[in-house]
Amino acid sequence: MRQTTPIFGGIESGGTKVVCAVGDARSATMLARAQFPTCDDPRALLAAVVAWFKEAERSHGPIAALGVASFGPLDLDERSPTYGRVTTTPKRGWRNADILGPLRAAFPAIPLGFDTDVNGAALGEGRWGAARGLDDFIYVTVGTGIGGAAVVRGAPVHGLVHPEMGHIPMPVLDGDTFAGACAIHGRCWEGLCAGPAIHARAGRPAEELAPDDPAWDLVARYMAHALLTLTYVLSPRRIIVGGSVRKAGQLGEAAFFASLRRHVVAANAGYIASAAIDGVGIDSYIVPPALGDDAGVCGAIALAQNASGSF
Amino acid sequence: MRQTTPIFGGIESGGTKVVCAVGDARSATMLARAQFPTCDDPRALLAAVVAWFKEAERSHGPIAALGVASFGPLDLDERSPTYGRVTTTPKRGWRNADILGPLRAAFPAIPLGFDTDVNGAALGEGRWGAARGLDDFIYVTVGTGIGGAAVVRGAPVHGLVHPEMGHIPMPVLDGDTFAGACAIHGRCWEGLCAGPAIHARAGRPAEELAPDDPAWDLVARYMAHALLTLTYVLSPRRIIVGGSVRKAGQLGEAAFFASLRRHVVAANAGYIASAAIDGVGIDSYIVPPALGDDAGVCGAIALAQNASGSF
Repeated sequence: MRQTTPIFGGIESGGTKVVCAVGDARSATMLARAQFPTCDDPRALLAAVVAWFKEAERSHGPIAALGVASFGPLDLDERSPTYGRVTTTPKRGWRNADILGPLRAAFPAIPLGFDTDVNGAALGEGRWGAARGLDDFIYVTVGTGIGGAAVVRGAPVHGLVHPEMGHIPMPVLDGDTFAGACAIHGRCWEGLCAGPAIHARAGRPAEELAPDDPAWDLVARYMAHALLTLTYVLSPRRIIVGGSVRKAGQLGEAAFFASLRRHVVAANAGYIASAAIDGVGIDSYIVPPALGDDAGVCGAIALAQNASGSF
Repeated sequence: MRQTTPIFGGIESGGTKVVCAVGDARSATMLARAQFPTCDDPRALLAAVVAWFKEAERSHGPIAALGVASFGPLDLDERSPTYGRVTTTPKRGWRNADILGPLRAAFPAIPLGFDTDVNGAALGEGRWGAARGLDDFIYVTVGTGIGGAAVVRGAPVHGLVHPEMGHIPMPVLDGDTFAGACAIHGRCWEGLCAGPAIHARAGRPAEELAPDDPAWDLVARYMAHALLTLTYVLSPRRIIVGGSVRKAGQLGEAAFFASLRRHVVAANAGYIASAAIDGVGIDSYIVPPALGDDAGVCGAIALAQNASGSF
């Protein structure tokens, strides 16, 4: 069915799959959606993506803007000659891959939005998900790695490059002797709480750990230190914790979040005396995402809307 | 001499003194300046401040806007009934003290700006000092306590309350057994690197320590971990380190900053591969303030300019 309101295209470019969708500005419901495996040939992949969007235009009408939320590192500096490219990734075929170039060639007349996958997901959660109505919040994803987006006054922080929250240094809890799993920093947040770190500490994957495995409590306490660090640095109104680790295998998401919240309250020790953190507010301060697996591509659509100036 | 360009009033309200000044938009040079001890009677103090600005208007012409950069915690929420007040301070006479109310009564027709002392100082450094031309930077002050301001896209981050960067948790270095001096968090950044923490660790004030006292190297390394945390969370284009501790007594400011920069580069371990951090750029990445003791009142003038919409 052809739309009477403008439609937007979103591309979530991830490490294992590229998701494409078209949607309108009214909800996170998508009009059409497709996904492609992230092969070693970005040119061929982008040609398939372009063909899919051309076909989508025939069904749903012209696309007003396209947004791309991509794995990185990315060149996000619009004044740079390599703006729109992946930069130093070790991912085969993708080093210096031009993502925006082929899209611009295929859709020369429409605005293109471009940001990191985690910034995109944060915008999606802000527009339609767990941070709706908030201008200042943080979205972190804890999975194979840890990434984070800081949304300040409605837009993601870029600054010099983009945030790398997953690598903040961490304290040692209770004489914990685990050396950490980050190849660069050892005991940074990612080195203690990402999936591979939990696996390295416990000797098996997080999903196989019993609910009372002591690793879960340590992970929740390290997570709490990291979330409190983000709170002290940025004073967000909410922190959304996404990614696979938060599902917490046999422990379960609800129990994991209850533990996270308890440890954040304990580590704050009443210092920030806001009801949002210190009282019952904590249940809506640290929350799971609302868009689930669609956060990425919804975020890409949000980037398209921002690029078009229609939001 | 009466000014032909608009003039602005700034009030830096600190724990020991309140500095008032009038200036114009062109430089950090002040046309007039006065200071008052921060007594236990905010009403009487504000009456003296008002009288001083009324007198300044007779000499220099009408003030277009007033800005206040104050110690906190403050209510910065313009929709709050207690906006413009100090909130839970233990400082005698200042709990719930209304700062903006008496100023608004005395100057009913002009815009009033209001922010924390550290946010004000950051704006001052951004407009006339060490972060001129940068929209994304951090200003921290390390003295009796540690405070920090995050400037994102030209404006300080507020969020839920305001940042409390001084209380981020810290790793333990080299089996360091010092328990930290923060009454609430023990080994947070402030508990390890503020003046009283150095005093508690070394048994005497920082100014009395020999340049090769091992405390200096530990302080520089903990500082580096904190500055790297801020870099990973916010991706600033520069970090300004102000406050008395950075002068580093007998070690000296230049040697202290050289040590800070070396330890930041080491702790980053090449992870953020930007020339701004990893190469010679580090010398202009971590810097002392340029406005010295005037940063606070210059920042208050910057708040006045922002409130008037003239910047």
